[in-house]
Amino acid sequence: MWFMRQAGRSLPEYRALKGDLSILDAVERPELAAELTLQPVTRYGVDAAILFSDIMVPLVGIGIDLEVVPGKGPVIAEPFRDATDLARLRPLDAASDVPYVAEAVRIAAKELEVPLIGFAGGPFTLASYLIEGGPSRVFSRTRTLMHSEPNTWMALMDSLASVAISSLRAQILAGASAIQLFDSWIGWLSLDEYATFVLPATKRIFAGLEDLDVPRIYFGINTSDLLSRMSTAGADVIGVDWRIGIAAARERIGNERGIQGNLNPATCLGPWETVEHETARILQEASAQPGHIFNLGHGVLPETNPEVLEKVVALVHGEQNGAAL
Amino acid sequence: MWFMRQAGRSLPEYRALKGDLSILDAVERPELAAELTLQPVTRYGVDAAILFSDIMVPLVGIGIDLEVVPGKGPVIAEPFRDATDLARLRPLDAASDVPYVAEAVRIAAKELEVPLIGFAGGPFTLASYLIEGGPSRVFSRTRTLMHSEPNTWMALMDSLASVAISSLRAQILAGASAIQLFDSWIGWLSLDEYATFVLPATKRIFAGLEDLDVPRIYFGINTSDLLSRMSTAGADVIGVDWRIGIAAARERIGNERGIQGNLNPATCLGPWETVEHETARILQEASAQPGHIFNLGHGVLPETNPEVLEKVVALVHGEQNGAAL
Repeated sequence: MWFMRQAGRSLPEYRALKGDLSILDAVERPELAAELTLQPVTRYGVDAAILFSDIMVPLVGIGIDLEVVPGKGPVIAEPFRDATDLARLRPLDAASDVPYVAEAVRIAAKELEVPLIGFAGGPFTLASYLIEGGPSRVFSRTRTLMHSEPNTWMALMDSLASVAISSLRAQILAGASAIQLFDSWIGWLSLDEYATFVLPATKRIFAGLEDLDVPRIYFGINTSDLLSRMSTAGADVIGVDWRIGIAAARERIGNERGIQGNLNPATCLGPWETVEHETARILQEASAQPGHIFNLGHGVLPETNPEVLEKVVALVHGEQNGAAL
Repeated sequence: MWFMRQAGRSLPEYRALKGDLSILDAVERPELAAELTLQPVTRYGVDAAILFSDIMVPLVGIGIDLEVVPGKGPVIAEPFRDATDLARLRPLDAASDVPYVAEAVRIAAKELEVPLIGFAGGPFTLASYLIEGGPSRVFSRTRTLMHSEPNTWMALMDSLASVAISSLRAQILAGASAIQLFDSWIGWLSLDEYATFVLPATKRIFAGLEDLDVPRIYFGINTSDLLSRMSTAGADVIGVDWRIGIAAARERIGNERGIQGNLNPATCLGPWETVEHETARILQEASAQPGHIFNLGHGVLPETNPEVLEKVVALVHGEQNGAAL
């Protein structure tokens, strides 16, 4: 078990250590990033660490001008508009473009007694930030480009897949023993859009890591109707959000792959009795089949009381025999 | 058949008539609002009009200080924080608080040869704007209040249900021959959250219109996992977004209720062949059972070419024998 966004604003020790540094500045200091990676393992005793970083970091590395605005998200100085923007996505040379990422992985992996999970942003999610210029609720510009310039779109997916492969390979070679692809917003697509416009590049990402032989987790939210197709992408574990029960997710994903999730992060803001009940329900549903990684259904909300997560860890560890990862 | 947000920025005649007026200012001019209501019926020949208005209008009517910012959405001057804010939600007296709404309905209904659909915002969606202060992607503050102050939350839902009932009754009595409740963002909730925290107030809304005997449509996006519970709310028709096929939706909704939807609005930005194929597929799936209203799965995107929607209407009318409404 671990928690998505387990390092972050909900932890006082995170706020104390990171201070006023922007997230991108913090990521560029490998000692600091490694320390932030370790914090939630120390506090919660979770079974895995996830690298403190951001899905936009490789794009910064290849020269895309962007900020990650607290409380808002990524903001791109010059959003992508058409085929001419494709030239701005040169290949990532992880060793020279983002040397601090592998360095943070090396430092953290050496300190950790649990696995370190590396990660990258999925092609749809990264494309949506590049095209919308920031966070979006309807992805109108992104879907316009997808449908009106499918060749440009497919080239964009391919470039972003290459960036993800380079970034993930560098993290694995530096010591990450599992990876997660966060294609958080794919659940805004219809099944056909997903299968036609996003799945091919996603398959290439997972295939491009196959030789390194580490578990590959694939995550998005709102994916209830996509799960069976997502299961064909080549990942070993599929992350599911809180909208679907583990049993229903298992039916769609099959028994070949692990399932990660899916306590509702918002539940953790309420009374402990509800958190306890939901956690027990998830463990019970998941116990029908091996291959479950307990997690939230999306990242820890900033308002979360860390003590609640501590109690969730105790509860899960009390009922499980060690971690599935 | 009709299109959600069929009056709006995608129509040149809309932009010409509305000019620089804000949407809230336009709504307060009943002649103008009626004319904007008629425009898409004239252009597209759809089988129903939907009143030109905004889900925030009743809240303006009871004195909540807010703007609807173009390209962004509602922005609340002083967001709701706790139980003390409940006092700001006094009951809506539609005749004196928003007289221009019923007046626009009367004018438009007199001109129209097709049914006029009235509408209101659902309690979760309105609460989310009040609490977040504007549009949100994760509804973190909203869900925090829901879980941490359930009594405040339930009182808020109840007040917003009362506002919706008053607003919808006034529209029906002025001549609307159907209504739609837009609780667009309920799909961000888990099934338990929905059933516990939102469904009771929603049932009260639909029950509160029962005596007026008009078809009641209930719409949200991302609702694949909620559809069977939504079907218990008391609506006659359930709107579904593009994430789920009509056949799968029919399994969850049953045969007692109509289904509305669900062409992907983003598909309408792409090549006609895809639009045609998808439209035909939806009609084919829907033909297994009576009681289908053809629509998009969410509102018309502003970038949509009206000629594409004209061709969709021709296609649907060519294959259907009149409208189901």
